[in-house]
Amino acid sequence: MFRFNCDYLEGAHPKILERLIATNEEQTPGYGEDLYTASAKEKIKEACACPDAKVYFLVGGTQTNVTVLDSLLKNYEGVLSADTGHINVHEAGAVELTGHKVITVPAENGKLSPEKARAYMKGFYNDVAWTHMVRPGAMYISHPSEYGTLYTEAELAELRAICDEYGMKLFLDGARLGFGLAAEGTDVTLPKIAKYCDAFYIGGTKIGALFGEAVVFTRKEDGAYFFTEIKQHGALLAKGRLLGVQFDAFFTDGLYMEISKKAVAQAMRIRRAFEEKGYRVYIDSPTNQQFFVIGEQKLSSLLKNVVVDDWGVIDAENNHVIRVTTSWATKDEAVDYLIDLL
Amino acid sequence: MFRFNCDYLEGAHPKILERLIATNEEQTPGYGEDLYTASAKEKIKEACACPDAKVYFLVGGTQTNVTVLDSLLKNYEGVLSADTGHINVHEAGAVELTGHKVITVPAENGKLSPEKARAYMKGFYNDVAWTHMVRPGAMYISHPSEYGTLYTEAELAELRAICDEYGMKLFLDGARLGFGLAAEGTDVTLPKIAKYCDAFYIGGTKIGALFGEAVVFTRKEDGAYFFTEIKQHGALLAKGRLLGVQFDAFFTDGLYMEISKKAVAQAMRIRRAFEEKGYRVYIDSPTNQQFFVIGEQKLSSLLKNVVVDDWGVIDAENNHVIRVTTSWATKDEAVDYLIDLL
Amino acid sequence: MFRFNCDYLEGAHPKILERLIATNEEQTPGYGEDLYTASAKEKIKEACACPDAKVYFLVGGTQTNVTVLDSLLKNYEGVLSADTGHINVHEAGAVELTGHKVITVPAENGKLSPEKARAYMKGFYNDVAWTHMVRPGAMYISHPSEYGTLYTEAELAELRAICDEYGMKLFLDGARLGFGLAAEGTDVTLPKIAKYCDAFYIGGTKIGALFGEAVVFTRKEDGAYFFTEIKQHGALLAKGRLLGVQFDAFFTDGLYMEISKKAVAQAMRIRRAFEEKGYRVYIDSPTNQQFFVIGEQKLSSLLKNVVVDDWGVIDAENNHVIRVTTSWATKDEAVDYLIDLL
Amino acid sequence: MFRFNCDYLEGAHPKILERLIATNEEQTPGYGEDLYTASAKEKIKEACACPDAKVYFLVGGTQTNVTVLDSLLKNYEGVLSADTGHINVHEAGAVELTGHKVITVPAENGKLSPEKARAYMKGFYNDVAWTHMVRPGAMYISHPSEYGTLYTEAELAELRAICDEYGMKLFLDGARLGFGLAAEGTDVTLPKIAKYCDAFYIGGTKIGALFGEAVVFTRKEDGAYFFTEIKQHGALLAKGRLLGVQFDAFFTDGLYMEISKKAVAQAMRIRRAFEEKGYRVYIDSPTNQQFFVIGEQKLSSLLKNVVVDDWGVIDAENNHVIRVTTSWATKDEAVDYLIDLL
Repeated sequence: MFRFNCDYLEGAHPKILERLIATNEEQTPGYGEDLYTASAKEKIKEACACPDAKVYFLVGGTQTNVTVLDSLLKNYEGVLSADTGHINVHEAGAVELTGHKVITVPAENGKLSPEKARAYMKGFYNDVAWTHMVRPGAMYISHPSEYGTLYTEAELAELRAICDEYGMKLFLDGARLGFGLAAEGTDVTLPKIAKYCDAFYIGGTKIGALFGEAVVFTRKEDGAYFFTEIKQHGALLAKGRLLGVQFDAFFTDGLYMEISKKAVAQAMRIRRAFEEKGYRVYIDSPTNQQFFVIGEQKLSSLLKNVVVDDWGVIDAENNHVIRVTTSWATKDEAVDYLIDLL
Repeated sequence: MFRFNCDYLEGAHPKILERLIATNEEQTPGYGEDLYTASAKEKIKEACACPDAKVYFLVGGTQTNVTVLDSLLKNYEGVLSADTGHINVHEAGAVELTGHKVITVPAENGKLSPEKARAYMKGFYNDVAWTHMVRPGAMYISHPSEYGTLYTEAELAELRAICDEYGMKLFLDGARLGFGLAAEGTDVTLPKIAKYCDAFYIGGTKIGALFGEAVVFTRKEDGAYFFTEIKQHGALLAKGRLLGVQFDAFFTDGLYMEISKKAVAQAMRIRRAFEEKGYRVYIDSPTNQQFFVIGEQKLSSLLKNVVVDDWGVIDAENNHVIRVTTSWATKDEAVDYLIDLL
Repeated sequence: MFRFNCDYLEGAHPKILERLIATNEEQTPGYGEDLYTASAKEKIKEACACPDAKVYFLVGGTQTNVTVLDSLLKNYEGVLSADTGHINVHEAGAVELTGHKVITVPAENGKLSPEKARAYMKGFYNDVAWTHMVRPGAMYISHPSEYGTLYTEAELAELRAICDEYGMKLFLDGARLGFGLAAEGTDVTLPKIAKYCDAFYIGGTKIGALFGEAVVFTRKEDGAYFFTEIKQHGALLAKGRLLGVQFDAFFTDGLYMEISKKAVAQAMRIRRAFEEKGYRVYIDSPTNQQFFVIGEQKLSSLLKNVVVDDWGVIDAENNHVIRVTTSWATKDEAVDYLIDLL
Repeated sequence: MFRFNCDYLEGAHPKILERLIATNEEQTPGYGEDLYTASAKEKIKEACACPDAKVYFLVGGTQTNVTVLDSLLKNYEGVLSADTGHINVHEAGAVELTGHKVITVPAENGKLSPEKARAYMKGFYNDVAWTHMVRPGAMYISHPSEYGTLYTEAELAELRAICDEYGMKLFLDGARLGFGLAAEGTDVTLPKIAKYCDAFYIGGTKIGALFGEAVVFTRKEDGAYFFTEIKQHGALLAKGRLLGVQFDAFFTDGLYMEISKKAVAQAMRIRRAFEEKGYRVYIDSPTNQQFFVIGEQKLSSLLKNVVVDDWGVIDAENNHVIRVTTSWATKDEAVDYLIDLL
């Protein structure tokens, strides 16, 4: 049965797997002190047009979010996030485990809107009791967001301006970054992300690696002891070259974007099919996650043949929202099959 | 140049890599809810003769130590360890990051001796100020230890008895467990470890996996929410089946022990050669890590041809201790080459 | 200038100060192991009709909230609270510092309503991803709430039932508990609080002590190592008898209730005066905090003569909400003076 | 029965109590925003000859140690301490609760010797695996130490030099600071402590306050958000003026030194008496804690008449070490009585 319920259903993209196989029996130093890792770092700095960036590789998204935030924040600071933010909902309290509060404002279209962020910060410092409250020391945004939506460059610039005004760091969770960069119509690029953000990560797990996320610190003053912090957070891979090899492959001959574009294209084919059949698009996502409104009976019959994510009932008519997700591995025949079922 | 400086220099054992390749394009649910993981869990429970055990898979050793200890300990408890214990020295304070103190006693032969452990606990409760002190809620031991040494069954039984007397958990770090089980003359087996310990892990990374450690909780009362705790500690692998596939391979047709035995045999060949050439063995290790005393000049010439770990000067004659480590990947020709250099 | 801006403007009630003076030069053991503390504990257990309760004394409210919650919660659990809860807003992230998430639902009348609490818990376990989320292990309520409002016995019973259903602890923050017990029309008593809650504290600081809060654990299984946890959280007073002496005075000859009743009576006088002059009562509080709606100009002139808390503008006409607070020390002449200004 | 077992057996020194009584019914803002607190801060800055210092008041020693260290340390740093340090032994893991490791070297005469400290730091950065280890970001010293011993100015200067060399903060725990400043022969003064240390605290609880410790940050770059950090650590006193009033009294007309000198003089009388009677002095302490060696039988008869601290057996002849402690409240008749018993 074809599965569309998430983008980490399969192993690695064949070109990545091939590199892991080719290098498997080589002896290299551990913990990322190998040449593959060094090469991957250089390629990423170049792709970000940020030659002085510091690049580190971690294994998964939650550990990356918490390790970067713990590094950026002072011990008494928290992080401002949309209430739908992954760190607020689906990371089992990992950020709080390291002592930092996740401060939330209601999401707009899955995003932390500059208006809401500014209003919060203004209100914070206007509160007579603000010294009794958790100072937001950073903003957390995900791009694409948990709903597949994207920030515009103007929004990133505005969030940056707020961060500058209030002495905050801007951190972008790029678990699905490739799909954001590959979206039609986006004006956000890696160099622009590097320009506006203090730190971000380029997701590997969901784009076609076995695992792996590449953290980029763009500012001189950040991340100097990050290696030790990775270890401290239990996030240091002994055979670190596995991360280097995979990201080196991603950033060779444009593989990262090639994979991302293909997945987005499949998502768009699915979207058009749903639209043509008269389904309502629930959220306007230009990336690999698509959200549709579907009646209970239809969903029930659909689920007999494919796996999609049921996000539950949204109205009195028992309509559901479903999430349909594509990845590097989504085959044409799977998409055809799904479309035929609509 | 041949490297003997650690046991995580290469990728995965060919039989494991083969299984990863074979299953690469399959679609499975994430987070370890796949059939490979289920199968690996069953095989491990059987190997431990502990049918009611709870088995979980994590990525690396430090994250496993900290996540298990945080699960076993009450918020006000610490963990008793030899001062040479990995959690005390080389984990960048990961245990303390979750709020627990590592309480140390001097190591004996790299181990936490039952005598020292008992003396500490007796002294603790005899101290009039013990309620102002951190209660040791668990013992941490590693088997093999950081010096390659092993506990006997009698020692494990005695540590268990102390834990029972003082209401403590016994946790065994098995990052190199295979090499311990494969050592000549040991009377410790997986079922015996399961009998004496509340929790332990079967190391994968250092035995021949790309990565991965299998945690076993042997007591009904422990580990019920461990899945959430793994997530909370940033240690949950999205493509969890990678762990299941690897451990399923380890526990099929005796691969785990086959790999371990081979590495130990190579270590013993190296040891005999050093002994025959008149070198002093620094610590009597029956496992894959061997420690020798070597003069500075000799070491210097050795390091021009192979990589071994220099643990520094130990006496006035400038003798050094070196660590020589074997793994699944240590080839006969590499051992021959090293021996020829002595 | 008379101040009505909070209930901790003065030192101690004369009867309490007198006891501190009388015992000042006595020598007693430290850390609460003295006879005054023992006596105070007995009196509190009696007042709660809970002879097996464990009673401990801490210095302030925030430290009490965080120490009790850290004791009640498992390491992977969070606490459910109204979004207006003191732990969520005005404790600078103290709960998160110990690793626990504060999970919020919108307050109703300053309270955590049973309906919202039940809905949250139901939704939590219905969420397919609940094992990736923070399990609410306790509920936090304050009585009176931050808005002076009170739970009814029926509400406490209902919250208790939800806690039982979902395996949660119920913790009541009683920083202003006396004012709640002294309110007209309440059906909540100390024994009923002890019956419904796993733990709560009887506030001293805001009722007329120099400082001090009395924690009561009502269930056998909780609080066994709480002395050590108090120390661990930096909340153990060296001269612990100061807490014992003060609470012994509170629970001698009904002083705690006498003080509380007087303050509530003064608050009611003020309220009636505001109502008679046509001011709108913002929230219906039967306790020592009163909230009124007042025009900007009037407020401005008021503030020239007395201190009240300005909670900011609430409508387009620039009306403000003010908080007027009474305490053990609120004198008739001060109330008269305030009323004359209206 | 006279007690000599610690220096916090009584309430407050009469002059301090008198000030608390005199100000009891005044209305002041909370949280230390009152004029008494402002006055006390000024006097302390003057006494320290450090006009730009930041001064804060907390309630007790453990909370002060942990809050200051958490403020000075980066999240991945630990604190270097003598193994006998209060933070390592008798604070129930408070420092670890906030995520920081206490790194220990063996004490010399109760102190962190510059030699041991330097050797540790040198060894740390010489260790090839230092990036896997906890970086010591601060040194913790107590003056007087837990054994009543004192640093010399030369030792403080040397510790400062090591801190400068390795980018560390120097923090001095002055729970008994007065007794150190009042000791005969010391060349350490408040201004010198301010010169060498980044932060320290002037103990109140053990010198004659009901409670209270005055933290001094001497460097511009430290402590800017310390108010919020105090709140975050549950250490903010609502009626903050109680701290201001007490420290204002301490630093008026030399009361702090007057009290300290008197207690040290009583301790010296006791010491001379022990020496004259032929008892061995266990540690050469010039402060209010004295340590003597005493036979079991003699101790037993002594304990029938006075309370001293038994620190246990130290040799095969069953000799014990006892601690005899004086305070502001130690009366001549009590000392006479004790001496008569020898």
